[in-house]
Amino acid sequence: MTTKDTLSLVFAALADPTRRNILTRLSQRPATVGEVAEPFEISAPAISQHIKVLEQAGLIERTANAQWRTLTIRTEPLDEASAWVEKHRYEWNQRFDELEEHLKTMTTKEEQ
Amino acid sequence: MTTKDTLSLVFAALADPTRRNILTRLSQRPATVGEVAEPFEISAPAISQHIKVLEQAGLIERTANAQWRTLTIRTEPLDEASAWVEKHRYEWNQRFDELEEHLKTMTTKEEQ
Repeated sequence: MTTKDTLSLVFAALADPTRRNILTRLSQRPATVGEVAEPFEISAPAISQHIKVLEQAGLIERTANAQWRTLTIRTEPLDEASAWVEKHRYEWNQRFDELEEHLKTMTTKEEQ
Repeated sequence: MTTKDTLSLVFAALADPTRRNILTRLSQRPATVGEVAEPFEISAPAISQHIKVLEQAGLIERTANAQWRTLTIRTEPLDEASAWVEKHRYEWNQRFDELEEHLKTMTTKEEQ
């Protein structure tokens, strides 16, 4: 496997409904692995794998103290993902408006 | 392969630097497959595969006329992806602010 860039890791981590559900859960408050796993009818190793993918993408962080391990969401990678998506939506909409304006001008000229 | 939900297809399509570059190119203006492939030193079948993934996610659209086939970006799936990411950034930041406020109150009480 080649080393992936951060943005690819983030988007790949988000490309799964179970992982998105885990993040939804953690966006409410930090939780233990057990709490995160609870709503899903999937095996403990499968949950661990999902958590690992989220962790490698930097989307969650494990903190451990003497009694329990907690998972916390990290929003910095979401900021980067959001910036990428917003930039492309914006650029295309700009071009689209220009194109529409251009077509309008052409139509007006034809009508004259 | 199981049927994937739209959001998973969109995030999976964005999880690759070549595919993101293709979208960047198309966010400037529609282009032919040849034009899109030009900057990349990868095989034609590899480019076709990337285009297929983008198309299945609804991120690009092929339009064909007698002379050429054009690829156009579609921003609706980006809107959905953006909404998901924004919601989670927002929710967590809200909770984080509440937590900070709570900790401040606790510290103030301890100091009294």
